Amino acid sequence: MRNLLMKVSYDGTDYNGFQTQPGGHTIQDYLEEAIHRLSGEQLKITASGRTDAGVHARGQVFNFYTASPIPLERWCMALNTWLPEDIVVTEAMEVPEDFHSRRAAKRKTYRYTINANQFPDIFNRRYQIHHYGKLDIEAMRQGLSHLIGTHDYTTFASRKSTKPSHVRTIFDAWIETDTSMCRPGTKDQGIIHTYLTGNGFLQHMVRIIMGTLIEVGEGRRHPDDMRVILEAKNRAAAGPTAMSKGLMLWEVEYDIPSIAETPSIQTT
Amino acid sequence: MRNLLMKVSYDGTDYNGFQTQPGGHTIQDYLEEAIHRLSGEQLKITASGRTDAGVHARGQVFNFYTASPIPLERWCMALNTWLPEDIVVTEAMEVPEDFHSRRAAKRKTYRYTINANQFPDIFNRRYQIHHYGKLDIEAMRQGLSHLIGTHDYTTFASRKSTKPSHVRTIFDAWIETDTSMCRPGTKDQGIIHTYLTGNGFLQHMVRIIMGTLIEVGEGRRHPDDMRVILEAKNRAAAGPTAMSKGLMLWEVEYDIPSIAETPSIQTT
Repeated sequence: MRNLLMKVSYDGTDYNGFQTQPGGHTIQDYLEEAIHRLSGEQLKITASGRTDAGVHARGQVFNFYTASPIPLERWCMALNTWLPEDIVVTEAMEVPEDFHSRRAAKRKTYRYTINANQFPDIFNRRYQIHHYGKLDIEAMRQGLSHLIGTHDYTTFASRKSTKPSHVRTIFDAWIETDTSMCRPGTKDQGIIHTYLTGNGFLQHMVRIIMGTLIEVGEGRRHPDDMRVILEAKNRAAAGPTAMSKGLMLWEVEYDIPSIAETPSIQTT
Repeated sequence: MRNLLMKVSYDGTDYNGFQTQPGGHTIQDYLEEAIHRLSGEQLKITASGRTDAGVHARGQVFNFYTASPIPLERWCMALNTWLPEDIVVTEAMEVPEDFHSRRAAKRKTYRYTINANQFPDIFNRRYQIHHYGKLDIEAMRQGLSHLIGTHDYTTFASRKSTKPSHVRTIFDAWIETDTSMCRPGTKDQGIIHTYLTGNGFLQHMVRIIMGTLIEVGEGRRHPDDMRVILEAKNRAAAGPTAMSKGLMLWEVEYDIPSIAETPSIQTT
């Protein structure tokens, strides 16, 4: 049996999230079905973590054990022929027998995107929320900085979270703005990408952080309130859960030679 | 009656092209229906030209005559509330009574996009074709250069074209490549954007040019063959019609103060 690790991108718009659930139509279901069609094996994959319904991934990672003799360099292209057009496997590598995508994940990065221009960008409408009202981006940067470090993030976790501990570490959090589409003489403010890198995130954590951060940007909360809100350890202290469509699992990093840096499988 | 000119973006994936036709579900139908809901007027709009089913527009332009007292600055936001999420009106201005969006158009620019990386970019899958095989971009540039000028473009027109003359002028044509998503150590070749600017384009003209240019990129035709193909004035001399999803009406220019340069309507 080989333990194979793969990297997958998906547009989560039309799926019920990553993880298999009774209603079906999840990313995991489609990946396992594609593996089944390719290798004949009915197996379960292990991902770095779940993503909610409507959330996207640029670089989700999963692994599984296979007895199939299919050569490593064939897997990506072959799986993609069985996958729908909004799911694509982009890298494959063999990892040690005891490697586990979730337990071995050292750093995860999420990106949340807000279009703060006057009009929606229809070509990216599935991957960003539209917020035309004035946003103070410097205030958002200042608010975000209070979340970096090791904290109990109960305030920013879904009340349904069943995790025994809500302590996590956010290594870094930053905002990048893209003003290339702003039209001169208008109130266009650009596309605002917020990145959060941590050792793990609780259910809805990035979306609740973003819902609160937007209130900071709107001037409805002071940037330094973010610290008070965090320390409250109470979901009621935070803002609303921002829409899932703006969220993307950007990257998952491991201590093994990063698959992001691994020259990808060459298919011929 | 005021003559209003508007700029509209649309994702053409799910529509039967721009222009009203018996099957319905066209961009024009939705624009006229939105105007009807807003102003109560049942009118016909005039666009800079039609786009085929599946073709997109960043900057399509249309005009219409209205007796509605709705202030100019209200039109965009108000129309957008009645439009589906893949159509958005982004600019509005009043133009002289005799202005006609098609007849007054001086320059049109189309963009065609090819993803020449190993894997599809699922987040732009609706707006680009995927071509993994090796493409010689310099050969494509050389081939494209033969099309600039004033020529009879019968070779690159649909056989169904009923236009009395196939003479048009291509002012400029160029290729831009975006290699930001290329992964080191792979055969990724980047995203290839081909732009064509002319005084008008025949039915399927850009797509047939692109289908032929891809054959040049693949090494199946010599770049200088483009001149011979053009001079044949025969559709059979050209390559296939490239898929509509890669095509976008990029910009339409007029001699009136360009609406592209006009500070957009400020809505409040």
